[in-house]
Amino acid sequence: MKADFEKKNLTKKSENIAAWYNDLVLLADLADYAETRGCMIIKPWGYAIWESVQDILDKQFKSDGIKNVYFPALIPKSLFKKEKEHIEGFAPELLSIDSIGKEKLKDPYVLRPTSEAVIDKSLAKWIKSYRDLPFKINQWCNVFRAEKRTYPFLRTTEFLWQEAHTSFASEKECQEMTLKASKWYQDFYEQYFAIAPYAGLKSQSEKFAGAKNTYTIEMVAPNGKALQLGTSHNLSNNFSKVFDIQFLDKNGKKQYVYQNSFGLSTRAIGGLVLTHGDDWGLILPPKIAPLQVIILPIVKNEALDNEIINFSKVIFDKLVSCNIRADIDLDFKHTLGYRINDWELKGVPLRIEIGQKELKEKQLLTVRRDNFEKNKLNINNFQQNISKILSEIQNDLFERSKSQRNNLSTNADSYEEFKKAIAEGKFVRAFWCENEKCESLIKEETKATNRCLEFEEIEKTTNGKCVYCGKKANRRWLFAKSY
Amino acid sequence: MKADFEKKNLTKKSENIAAWYNDLVLLADLADYAETRGCMIIKPWGYAIWESVQDILDKQFKSDGIKNVYFPALIPKSLFKKEKEHIEGFAPELLSIDSIGKEKLKDPYVLRPTSEAVIDKSLAKWIKSYRDLPFKINQWCNVFRAEKRTYPFLRTTEFLWQEAHTSFASEKECQEMTLKASKWYQDFYEQYFAIAPYAGLKSQSEKFAGAKNTYTIEMVAPNGKALQLGTSHNLSNNFSKVFDIQFLDKNGKKQYVYQNSFGLSTRAIGGLVLTHGDDWGLILPPKIAPLQVIILPIVKNEALDNEIINFSKVIFDKLVSCNIRADIDLDFKHTLGYRINDWELKGVPLRIEIGQKELKEKQLLTVRRDNFEKNKLNINNFQQNISKILSEIQNDLFERSKSQRNNLSTNADSYEEFKKAIAEGKFVRAFWCENEKCESLIKEETKATNRCLEFEEIEKTTNGKCVYCGKKANRRWLFAKSY
Repeated sequence: MKADFEKKNLTKKSENIAAWYNDLVLLADLADYAETRGCMIIKPWGYAIWESVQDILDKQFKSDGIKNVYFPALIPKSLFKKEKEHIEGFAPELLSIDSIGKEKLKDPYVLRPTSEAVIDKSLAKWIKSYRDLPFKINQWCNVFRAEKRTYPFLRTTEFLWQEAHTSFASEKECQEMTLKASKWYQDFYEQYFAIAPYAGLKSQSEKFAGAKNTYTIEMVAPNGKALQLGTSHNLSNNFSKVFDIQFLDKNGKKQYVYQNSFGLSTRAIGGLVLTHGDDWGLILPPKIAPLQVIILPIVKNEALDNEIINFSKVIFDKLVSCNIRADIDLDFKHTLGYRINDWELKGVPLRIEIGQKELKEKQLLTVRRDNFEKNKLNINNFQQNISKILSEIQNDLFERSKSQRNNLSTNADSYEEFKKAIAEGKFVRAFWCENEKCESLIKEETKATNRCLEFEEIEKTTNGKCVYCGKKANRRWLFAKSY
Repeated sequence: MKADFEKKNLTKKSENIAAWYNDLVLLADLADYAETRGCMIIKPWGYAIWESVQDILDKQFKSDGIKNVYFPALIPKSLFKKEKEHIEGFAPELLSIDSIGKEKLKDPYVLRPTSEAVIDKSLAKWIKSYRDLPFKINQWCNVFRAEKRTYPFLRTTEFLWQEAHTSFASEKECQEMTLKASKWYQDFYEQYFAIAPYAGLKSQSEKFAGAKNTYTIEMVAPNGKALQLGTSHNLSNNFSKVFDIQFLDKNGKKQYVYQNSFGLSTRAIGGLVLTHGDDWGLILPPKIAPLQVIILPIVKNEALDNEIINFSKVIFDKLVSCNIRADIDLDFKHTLGYRINDWELKGVPLRIEIGQKELKEKQLLTVRRDNFEKNKLNINNFQQNISKILSEIQNDLFERSKSQRNNLSTNADSYEEFKKAIAEGKFVRAFWCENEKCESLIKEETKATNRCLEFEEIEKTTNGKCVYCGKKANRRWLFAKSY
């Protein structure tokens, strides 16, 4: 059990999750509020998590032949307007640059909310022949979408993301890439973030502005609300027709390319906080924790203190030499309780305490952050045991997330059941006739939005009835309130 | 000597360096022009070089305890105006956000040209005590400075850079950090980019707007013009007084922190192109080349072709297993001449050709990109010989850069000599009385700007005379036309 150390005014997660979230983001030193309305500052601890994300996904992309590029953040408004659905979808969120120095601009710029328009303009120049395909690029950059209500990481006017844009000779390859990217994201969340999300197809009204189809990763927050954590769009040849991206096929015939785009943003960090945090702070899955192990020498200004510190340093060196991301806390300005509290707030998965007892017995006391379980490890081969504990933490967090998701999900077979479950803060699987009118009435009456059609459901042809209108419906869609 | 393969319309460097530069940036696939005025698109080959830069500098920063963060790109104009010299220096280059969606903003934003203002506003909250110091952060981001005349990499309205911001309890530590960062940049250019720049102190009129002192890295372009490739600023407590960044010292007394900032941008890639490129294309120093070795199997649709390809793949695997960044060109759609030409344009330091002769003799033909020198390597232990050649290329490029710099530099002891040397396209070392009036008249009359006072000259007290006014002058400053 958790010892009762002084806490830094962290609201209880169960009492008020919104207040808890905001407290925790600040107290764990992930981010801070900025002077700029709706923007945030990502502090070192938060940014280190983003660097973990970049490292993992960037390797995945590169192994698939996707190359990094950089396109301008400023897009001429005239260019952005070319794809009609695209501008309609993004117009209210656009930030405009109207002047440079004292000069008013005739064609103002918008700050990119996404880069299809500016990238496609170049692809039309670069792609000439089937030999140039597939053409796969990605960029890590900032994007801007004005938001009225903002929450750090979850919804801010500026955020960081990656956006990959790939072009193919055939719709088939394009769809395969769309699904592959969606699977990458799902695996990323499951294997590294230890989050069990839902994954599937967006409805036509919820898809990306200008796409044929959008596949999404939807996380179930602890309050049953949905958080969209990554999307992969099959753009078909919608944009290539608008921007005239044509290639000569093997028979010398001009064809429009088929395109795909997919993105994942710093919102991922918000999902991580919500899923794994508790009343004591953040809990980071070991695979993405900037620090996996923190060593705390416990000194009391006695004769043994130097020995304890030296022993701790030996342990530290041994961990680092096994590629375990470890650090040693030699900051004795604060009390032990304060320091423990602080590392727990920051969510370091495993703590090693080394005091006089441990020194004498040549043992290490380990404390797991996720369940406060303590272990005594003999120093012979302790590295292997540490690795084992870290991998148990990773698995346990994932299993916990899976249970939480399942506990917060339910089927509804009548509109009454549906409304009750939504009101109780659940994700609801319900038959829907796939008519946009029912979807929008459901939203109006219950505030629940259509989240996705899970992959397992896509091919189904069950004989069901729409939860709203009672008409024929073949597939159960997931509905939930949006975070 | 270089064989006479077809070239892709690359202007000769000696004939018109500006046209050659623009051709090469496009032909080597480093970058492309963008629809947005004054902006560029960094293509995969160019971005891979930037990733090398990031990798090297990021490790250097982290080993010094500097942590990465991310601050908003949008800075309220009211905040940016607080430091008087700062806003005066940057005002003409600022891009303003005046509206969001349809809403006009009361306090418009500027797009960051640099982040002192927004970062310092937070530091005032975060730094409380001497225990919080030193405080060292860095960000990799885009910045915006409107430019009338733009050149890819060298001067664009948006560019990528890193900006580090460090705070200290004492001016002494702050100055040490300023010099350390300047030395990092110099070492980076010398050891990785194989460029021999000048490094030293900027004059007061050329320093960063708001700084006490600026130290700079100045490259000598092949036409004798100066390219500023990285700056490190001692901001003293100028900004901390404006933004009220105070800490309690060990005696419980409030003090302003001393600050430093330093940055290096994608302009570095422009410097690389200018220094090492030749009439056949780019030449990349092996240490930063995204690809160090390209293997070209030479096939002719004969019985041996498959064997050649398999043999090439074995060579490729062996190189990769020695951590040599290699690739194998199996794109047989184009002629051998075209492919060789293309890899030369891209500047891959070493090419390995494998044809029937090489297969039979179990030898490899290597061709150095920098001097087209050919070698036959026995396949026993060829990896060691490849590494040796790569390291020779790295050294030779640096020596060549050093000679070029020295050949383009001269002393001038009279204004006549000075004007003649500047007109000839030289860097000129001349005594200057350190009066801004002389500096500005020199600029007006010769177009030469004061580049820096080299580190070796700072402590000198030679008994010289100002090259312009003839008054007492102790130190020789470097003057040159700006690129």
